[in-house]
Amino acid sequence: MLAPERIIRLEDDRVVMLDQRRLPHEEVDLLCGSAAEVADAIRAMAVRGAPAIGIAGAYGYALAAARGEDLDEAFELLEGARPTAANLSWALREVRMAADPAVRARELHSEEVERCRAMSAHAAELLAPDSRALTHCNTGALATGGQGTALGAVHEAWTQGLLRHVFVDETRPLLQGARLTAWELEADGIPHTVVADSAAGYLMAGGEVDCVLVGADRIAANGDTANKIGTYSLAVLAYRHEVPFYVVAPTSTVDLETATGAEIPIEERDPAEVSLRSPARNPAFDVTPRELITAIVTEAGVHRRPYAESLASQVPA
Amino acid sequence: MLAPERIIRLEDDRVVMLDQRRLPHEEVDLLCGSAAEVADAIRAMAVRGAPAIGIAGAYGYALAAARGEDLDEAFELLEGARPTAANLSWALREVRMAADPAVRARELHSEEVERCRAMSAHAAELLAPDSRALTHCNTGALATGGQGTALGAVHEAWTQGLLRHVFVDETRPLLQGARLTAWELEADGIPHTVVADSAAGYLMAGGEVDCVLVGADRIAANGDTANKIGTYSLAVLAYRHEVPFYVVAPTSTVDLETATGAEIPIEERDPAEVSLRSPARNPAFDVTPRELITAIVTEAGVHRRPYAESLASQVPA
Repeated sequence: MLAPERIIRLEDDRVVMLDQRRLPHEEVDLLCGSAAEVADAIRAMAVRGAPAIGIAGAYGYALAAARGEDLDEAFELLEGARPTAANLSWALREVRMAADPAVRARELHSEEVERCRAMSAHAAELLAPDSRALTHCNTGALATGGQGTALGAVHEAWTQGLLRHVFVDETRPLLQGARLTAWELEADGIPHTVVADSAAGYLMAGGEVDCVLVGADRIAANGDTANKIGTYSLAVLAYRHEVPFYVVAPTSTVDLETATGAEIPIEERDPAEVSLRSPARNPAFDVTPRELITAIVTEAGVHRRPYAESLASQVPA
Repeated sequence: MLAPERIIRLEDDRVVMLDQRRLPHEEVDLLCGSAAEVADAIRAMAVRGAPAIGIAGAYGYALAAARGEDLDEAFELLEGARPTAANLSWALREVRMAADPAVRARELHSEEVERCRAMSAHAAELLAPDSRALTHCNTGALATGGQGTALGAVHEAWTQGLLRHVFVDETRPLLQGARLTAWELEADGIPHTVVADSAAGYLMAGGEVDCVLVGADRIAANGDTANKIGTYSLAVLAYRHEVPFYVVAPTSTVDLETATGAEIPIEERDPAEVSLRSPARNPAFDVTPRELITAIVTEAGVHRRPYAESLASQVPA
């Protein structure tokens, strides 16, 4: 598994991150010398995944503080880089309140590593022995700076001998599944198969999937969950085939001020990511309604319906 | 709209087809000098789409006859090029029975053009004014040698002023939607937007889709329908959102000897089409169960449930 500081770290005068756009072909660090450069890296998805975006934002803010940048401006720039993930503004608020932003940012990263470990252990308990899991996008080390959320659970289940196989949705348009998740699973020696996003229904209909594990970019107070585009389709298919559908995400992803999924802003990204030639639409996320989610797993434990109570009792206000 | 002979034609000593693998960037003809070369073109998807494959097979057999090739061998070679489409073996049986295979093959092509026209007219009648349709893969001129099946209906509805917009699934892994359908719609001036396959659920949840129109590679006697991978997911989503889901295909796609979808062989293609780097699976088709299909439209008219009776009464045995 990738070391947390390999994915992203704060140095004296810069934030260093593994440039995820160039994986799996090249392992190249991206060096960001200002909050604006960190915001650009987040927007361009050199770093992505809700928890990792939060850490990047925190490091970006700490860098701005060290450099004597205008901190209100830095906050705004970083917070506006991606609109959907809840962790970004949460992490920024945390470092803004801190006496020493650099210390707090590094602490947030360490806490994320610990949260990943805890939620992975809770989620792995839900898997039956010999499970074949299906996952979407990338929710591993690259997405979190720790061992991962949904993919952290996959790793933990594999370590415990509960997992037989992982199906990896390629995750168009940016192929985070085919590029990043497959790369992480290969490094960890976990048996996996990449499939087109549209093949998940075929696999479920054929009885080849025992559970679906996904992460989250924002979880509303009622349990509705925004995640990578295509997550909703998986949830609808899993429901039809009575395949358990688990969301694995830290409590920092839960936004109690967002009552339902209808209020979550959905980022529409550059259509050129989908097609260079034709008019295109590129919504980056969709919302899965709570009734399709079997359980939400956070570092605090396994949340079941009704989510409103279960989440409110565990998430720091 | 593309002229039928531009898509595929039989000349004295060869079959000439527009090489669909190179669209939309280049319009290049592929020249096939033997049945084996036609079979290779079908297998490699230089020509694809169930009705077009049938015509290609018929022309390939006629070419073999003109060249004095072993006709049993030619038949077998061509029939085995793609296992899922029902039209291929149907068309091959037609030309094998004919006194003059070339005459019969050209006649089949003309009949396909006529069938497309008839089924497009029947299907367009199902659309409400100002409809926003979603379609998958390519079911237009390129796929049929005529005006198309599902995309023929789109064209007809547009001509009649019933259509507002078409959403085009890009259709991974070979992008027949983004490459071929968008190219045809652009040529015909029909407003369209390409989306990742995984975005269809988002569009339906947002109330942006009024109907789904797809083709078919094989329709079982009970109405279960094999079509491009991802069709099943669309049908499940459409069902959840009460969006009408229409299959548009000629009766030559209906295989009364296949009782249910469970008996339809599903071609698994080269995993390298999905990923060059990782282990991958590449099922090319899936099966949509009849209960998710609002209507099946053939050149004979609109078939409703129970499909078994409706199809059996219209399909020549």
